[in-house]
Amino acid sequence: MGKPLILVTNDDGFQAEGLKVLTELAREIGDVVVVAPDDGQSGMSHAITIKRPVRVLKRSEEEGLTVYSCSGTPVDCVKLALNQLLDRKPDLLLSGINHGSNASVSVIYSGTMAAAIEGGVNGIKSVGFSLLDHSPDADFSASGKMAGRILKEVMKNGIPAEICLNVNIPAIPEKQIKGVKVCRQTKGHWQEEFDKRTDPFNRDYYWLTGYFNNYEPGAEDTDEWALKNGYVSIVPIRIDYTCFDYIEPLSKRKF
Amino acid sequence: MGKPLILVTNDDGFQAEGLKVLTELAREIGDVVVVAPDDGQSGMSHAITIKRPVRVLKRSEEEGLTVYSCSGTPVDCVKLALNQLLDRKPDLLLSGINHGSNASVSVIYSGTMAAAIEGGVNGIKSVGFSLLDHSPDADFSASGKMAGRILKEVMKNGIPAEICLNVNIPAIPEKQIKGVKVCRQTKGHWQEEFDKRTDPFNRDYYWLTGYFNNYEPGAEDTDEWALKNGYVSIVPIRIDYTCFDYIEPLSKRKF
Repeated sequence: MGKPLILVTNDDGFQAEGLKVLTELAREIGDVVVVAPDDGQSGMSHAITIKRPVRVLKRSEEEGLTVYSCSGTPVDCVKLALNQLLDRKPDLLLSGINHGSNASVSVIYSGTMAAAIEGGVNGIKSVGFSLLDHSPDADFSASGKMAGRILKEVMKNGIPAEICLNVNIPAIPEKQIKGVKVCRQTKGHWQEEFDKRTDPFNRDYYWLTGYFNNYEPGAEDTDEWALKNGYVSIVPIRIDYTCFDYIEPLSKRKF
Repeated sequence: MGKPLILVTNDDGFQAEGLKVLTELAREIGDVVVVAPDDGQSGMSHAITIKRPVRVLKRSEEEGLTVYSCSGTPVDCVKLALNQLLDRKPDLLLSGINHGSNASVSVIYSGTMAAAIEGGVNGIKSVGFSLLDHSPDADFSASGKMAGRILKEVMKNGIPAEICLNVNIPAIPEKQIKGVKVCRQTKGHWQEEFDKRTDPFNRDYYWLTGYFNNYEPGAEDTDEWALKNGYVSIVPIRIDYTCFDYIEPLSKRKF
């Protein structure tokens, strides 16, 4: 049996520091193919490119590592990899390490996590990693070590087919990290505060800004709580969006 | 107490036929504000516009109906409506009627359903409607009637805060529709078949194409089965992506 094949992607682009850290971790496990966006695709969620064609460039190739960049979204990258660029189905899909949190409801806007979910939909063990630091030159030394620990466990014990993992890592020194905590997604929402401006032609435009509104800051089983208290959080994300609990009660209603 | 306020959006753009049908249904219930994309935003999923500003135009205003178009994604439309354009929180969010199916795994790529999920995240009763006909001049007469029936029920009995509804309607005459069936999301995935071409400058590019691969075509409790057999399908979609069943088993593992 050959080495495991690992597909690595992200939403910050193929040149992002977090991607390089994750790529190095992946190389310790197997053969690695990186297919990542040309540039930043944060907030692209599960978007796919339909109206325009997608382009791919091979950026580098060496023993055990091939790097492509793609003009599309993170999900386009995964689809292209699975359908065109890889010669077999990967054993593992890694996305990230994202520059910035994807905890709580941010999971639904995240291109990083969409790539992991797309892996899951295609029956591939998939993990998305994010560091709670948006800066392009964030320090990934502690998060790289924690990601490595989690990867080893996942390679050993697998991930059930129904889920992928959303891993968030606090931006604190390694010694201060208390451990890894499996959590649920915190209930909350992004409270928008659009910045309304007027252009030189006297027309309005808006910049999307806002802050995260945590509905349950004291709930110790949530990812936001874990991260605030020095833990790495892992939330199992379900590939199937059905709310099974409501099928029976809704079935009784007369639509 | 005033009339209910209803926010209507879609991912096919403010001029789409399906949006007009849904808007008319909404007007029978209350005051309506439409905030829909300038043009088609299919496959945009939960994407938000971060790198560019967003623009809004008031297209028309009459008693009980104001129509805006927005340069952003369906989720941008919802965010702008809630934060800038509406004077109070809407009582209901309707998205669609989409030109084309959003059954099974298509829910994760759909801008129509992302808008409904965004409504749910913000605590608004939200329903996404889709007709299984992609053509711009699809016949919405039967689907409009079915959507109206479902809306009346939803206004009467509400929707639990944890979910939004994914309604798909087969493209068949009203008389052939057997009824409404509450279902789970069909397990399956889109099998990509990228169309690889070469541009006039001798560089490759890809068009994303493919077909839906249904893993369980015989499962009578799924939305694909319901639609193939003449039913309108309703899938309750969970706003929270946590897979609660795996929190305990994962918690026992040593990451």
